[in-house]
Amino acid sequence: MASRRLEVLQAHLGGLRVQEDDDRELERQATSAAATTLPPPDQMFDFLTRDNKQLRGQIFEFLKDPLYRPNYYLSMQGFRDLTSKRVAKFVGARFFSVFDYVNDPLKFQAALECLSFCDYSLAIKSGVHFTLCGGTIAKLGTEKHHDVLRAMDTLELPGSFGMTELGHGSNVMGIETTAVYDPASQEFILNTPNNEASKFWIGGVAQTARISAIFAQLTVNGRNEGPHVFIVHLRDASGNFMPGVRCADNGPKQGLLGVDNGQIWLNNVRVPRDALLDRFATVDSAGNYRSPIANVQQRFGTMIGGLTTGRMLIAQGAVDACKIGCTIAIRYAADRPQFGDRPILSYLTHQRRLFVGLSTTYAFHLAMLQLKQVVIKGGPDAAKQVHIVSSGLKAGATWHRVKILQDCRECCGGMGFLAINRIGPMLNDMNVDTTFEGDNTVLMAQVAKPLLDAAVKARMTSAPPPPKVMEMDLCKTCVGRLLAWREQMLTAGLAADMAAAAAKGGANAAMAALDDNLDRVTQLGWAWTDRHTFAAFQAEAAAAPPQLQPALNLLALLYGLTRIEAGVECYLSTGALSGEAMKAVHAKANALCRELGAGNGRLALALCDGFGIPDHLLQAPIAIGNWRTFEG
Amino acid sequence: MASRRLEVLQAHLGGLRVQEDDDRELERQATSAAATTLPPPDQMFDFLTRDNKQLRGQIFEFLKDPLYRPNYYLSMQGFRDLTSKRVAKFVGARFFSVFDYVNDPLKFQAALECLSFCDYSLAIKSGVHFTLCGGTIAKLGTEKHHDVLRAMDTLELPGSFGMTELGHGSNVMGIETTAVYDPASQEFILNTPNNEASKFWIGGVAQTARISAIFAQLTVNGRNEGPHVFIVHLRDASGNFMPGVRCADNGPKQGLLGVDNGQIWLNNVRVPRDALLDRFATVDSAGNYRSPIANVQQRFGTMIGGLTTGRMLIAQGAVDACKIGCTIAIRYAADRPQFGDRPILSYLTHQRRLFVGLSTTYAFHLAMLQLKQVVIKGGPDAAKQVHIVSSGLKAGATWHRVKILQDCRECCGGMGFLAINRIGPMLNDMNVDTTFEGDNTVLMAQVAKPLLDAAVKARMTSAPPPPKVMEMDLCKTCVGRLLAWREQMLTAGLAADMAAAAAKGGANAAMAALDDNLDRVTQLGWAWTDRHTFAAFQAEAAAAPPQLQPALNLLALLYGLTRIEAGVECYLSTGALSGEAMKAVHAKANALCRELGAGNGRLALALCDGFGIPDHLLQAPIAIGNWRTFEG
Repeated sequence: MASRRLEVLQAHLGGLRVQEDDDRELERQATSAAATTLPPPDQMFDFLTRDNKQLRGQIFEFLKDPLYRPNYYLSMQGFRDLTSKRVAKFVGARFFSVFDYVNDPLKFQAALECLSFCDYSLAIKSGVHFTLCGGTIAKLGTEKHHDVLRAMDTLELPGSFGMTELGHGSNVMGIETTAVYDPASQEFILNTPNNEASKFWIGGVAQTARISAIFAQLTVNGRNEGPHVFIVHLRDASGNFMPGVRCADNGPKQGLLGVDNGQIWLNNVRVPRDALLDRFATVDSAGNYRSPIANVQQRFGTMIGGLTTGRMLIAQGAVDACKIGCTIAIRYAADRPQFGDRPILSYLTHQRRLFVGLSTTYAFHLAMLQLKQVVIKGGPDAAKQVHIVSSGLKAGATWHRVKILQDCRECCGGMGFLAINRIGPMLNDMNVDTTFEGDNTVLMAQVAKPLLDAAVKARMTSAPPPPKVMEMDLCKTCVGRLLAWREQMLTAGLAADMAAAAAKGGANAAMAALDDNLDRVTQLGWAWTDRHTFAAFQAEAAAAPPQLQPALNLLALLYGLTRIEAGVECYLSTGALSGEAMKAVHAKANALCRELGAGNGRLALALCDGFGIPDHLLQAPIAIGNWRTFEG
Repeated sequence: MASRRLEVLQAHLGGLRVQEDDDRELERQATSAAATTLPPPDQMFDFLTRDNKQLRGQIFEFLKDPLYRPNYYLSMQGFRDLTSKRVAKFVGARFFSVFDYVNDPLKFQAALECLSFCDYSLAIKSGVHFTLCGGTIAKLGTEKHHDVLRAMDTLELPGSFGMTELGHGSNVMGIETTAVYDPASQEFILNTPNNEASKFWIGGVAQTARISAIFAQLTVNGRNEGPHVFIVHLRDASGNFMPGVRCADNGPKQGLLGVDNGQIWLNNVRVPRDALLDRFATVDSAGNYRSPIANVQQRFGTMIGGLTTGRMLIAQGAVDACKIGCTIAIRYAADRPQFGDRPILSYLTHQRRLFVGLSTTYAFHLAMLQLKQVVIKGGPDAAKQVHIVSSGLKAGATWHRVKILQDCRECCGGMGFLAINRIGPMLNDMNVDTTFEGDNTVLMAQVAKPLLDAAVKARMTSAPPPPKVMEMDLCKTCVGRLLAWREQMLTAGLAADMAAAAAKGGANAAMAALDDNLDRVTQLGWAWTDRHTFAAFQAEAAAAPPQLQPALNLLALLYGLTRIEAGVECYLSTGALSGEAMKAVHAKANALCRELGAGNGRLALALCDGFGIPDHLLQAPIAIGNWRTFEG
């Protein structure tokens, strides 16, 4: 029916010019083929799973253990205890080692990714130990720290990550914990100078962690060398605090109740000279500080720049949660009639929410796959690129997750609010992901900043003319051009305002202008993320096995069209798209939704099956059972 | 700084025509006065609290009892037990009676509204007992049911509301539970014919309810008379099930853990003839069915039409949660520096989220006040009007709540994820409000339907020309016109499409066209809600005490401008607003945010104080304490 509406619109708009476009015909074939060519789920799963397939399969199988079955009846303490048991059993199975953080990063990530399919507390508690603490020691430490890493691999030394302070979240450079080198004893003396400098939100610290990677401002010979990281023992083997250490329990949270976050105060805590993670800076026995990076800010940037794995795992966790949510909600909607025999999945309002969620989930999964390749390949610009891409994808994926899971929850009605149906608890547990590992608004500004810097440097003040895509036969190439143009348009607009301010009042005025336009800076971060993610999707779809291409092309187009919808103001206000063209965008997106929903959603259901989530990890009775026989 | 941007834009747009507008000058005075005239919080609280001030004060005071202090450490069962104790103590204080549902509806609502300030489980568990069960019996029953109501007032008979079935949520007319009159015994025999007909999600049924207002298809003398309501005893005084009754526990949910939802199966349960709530239909001893309303659908519509109090309480609960969330987040942001001494409230991105939330909260609170007046005044069209307005406000208020609380949570960073800071648990508990008491998407369609019916009847196919508001000095009158025009535009567009379809294929084709445009139907529901709520805000602000008017006018304008932003496509695609005019809308909204944020948010903070939420109900340490001294 939506395609009928499209025809009417097309007839309406017959006079508009048509652009040359080589893949348009291909597109048309692909889209119409999708209705008949279902992507074989196994093949799709292979396509989506590029590395460590066997390991992933083994961990998924391991998670069939009854210990990993959901239990929503527990108190906070009960759930913490269960989570500790789960972590211990998982660590005991030795699927991977903390040394893999450096030696085999894909394996390291693959193992941890599997856990979030089971439970986010399990994933985060393991992630704090292996990624944040272990990874930091592996990356910033040297061979002398390998004993500690080996003790982490057996969980003899449960780890924590002492970066954030009560007063300093986004501003890590501003932490106040101090570490002063004492040449006499060859020790560092660590202190919490005031309550705002107490380490806060530190996962594992309330009850379980024995060590912490503590970030502190290092002073050697009276000179401040900026933040450095130290291995600090918090508790002995019996669980008693080490001298000078005090910890408190942050208590219950909105979710993630299995993780025991806490607060740390250090009072003249002495650690040996070897406690300093010394890959980028050393202090010799005589008390001489040496670092190959002279600038304090650059030095800290280099240290912290190697620690993007955590952010990538958060982004991937959000994507994987959306896979679970979409699968549950789409399966239920296809099986749930209301007002007669008509399944609720047949309503356009339902399709618009669930299928846009599905296409967005595919988009970010594929963009994450590409990012992992950039990390693995390395190269001179890799670190900078990884920082920008991981920031944009983390902010984009987690903000999309909030919306997608909320849509899934609402589309399941009351069933979406029932804990065993999984979506509600995921919303609770994961709500932290929009602000941890980087506040999303701050991350979007970091994505925008290099674009603006480059534009100001190149004296860019006007955007290129909009691409000529006035015809209604919207294709992926057109969509890609439109998304790229929006990014350029927003960049140019902001750069022009900054340049104008700078011309009047210098650099400070330019910064003030930027500050006064932070709403547009966030929009630019989104525009970059939309363009980047769509391009990744397009490239991945083009390289996919032929049987998968029709469905992937359809999803990519749907994703791209909805991102044009999200940027509607930019297109309409500049005349890049007319009001009628915008209607055609909606009509095309609706038509694609109709195609995904045809035959009671057979294509959409096949695409969910392509995620390859086994029943014991989907968990939700409404997705793996028959809701009609539901009791209690 | 935002005003500087506005000036630049205005200079840029000098050539645009300026419209006559009598309140423009007033507006300008009002807005600039707001910076100096702070609304006295007590006066604002009086303005926002129109009825039962003393009662509300008494209940707030009562909630100082330590029993009502938050405890996030409990298991589901622990929290259920605590909630039962809280309900019992509250009922014991006899602040109001279930008879007030009919006799003094404002008092009834005021008492229950107070509870959601304390805890949503307490509010909902009390609401199920008093509003859904008691109110239904009070409204649909007659004097013979007063004994039951008296027993509800003492909690001797905890009540539940047996409407929803596993298979029938939105489609209440389609419920399958049967009630057959047996003239021989003068009893009704109730049955659950299949599992999908089991009563599902019934609050109180898992453990505590003794009676239920059961909705069932009534058959008398072999004739189906449609759904009717019966008082059915589920448990005796010792808690044992009555003959033929079986209940199961729905178990843990995303939130609202204090409410014990459950499932009911009835197997030849016999209830006396007096168990029928017989205001609109009677069965005499000889087994003759009589009702003043002949049509089954109309009859049920009349019964259910009187039960809007529950929906209004849900809407008001969402508004009150936003008051709490905004107060907590704005106070924290004003006191939380990051990167030097600058409080995070000074960032435009923060202001845009929190102040738009604040203005929307005021808007819906005032619209709810107006709706209550419509209910109290009554009159011939009141029922229909109340249905539409309560549907739009419930859907709008709860969807805004999701966004506003999420923004508040993110703006508080990790502190927003900590349970004691309140926002996270509110997000969990209240997530049900988007689908209970009417699924929001369905409600928005019900708001749109009469508009479309009227348009089709009037053969409306084109919208009136857009209002002439091309000048940049945006005022409330302009905004109101623009919002009204969008509603007309969307109505006319849909009506035209339906008429065109009807001309080709009759009524069925018109319905199919509507079904194929459900995305636009939801948009129309939003457009109605935006226009209605803004008009209510405008009228209330105009009637406010002079000292409050500057601030209220500022908030109303901010709310209206952001609703124009939400409908940007309609304005730009039709040329009602130019791209430059749209930029002026943003600039004006930003300037208003800057005004609310000036002096470290003194105006915004005063407006939060105007909600009059005492510290023991705000609860959050970050709002009532000093986060710098935070420990554990």
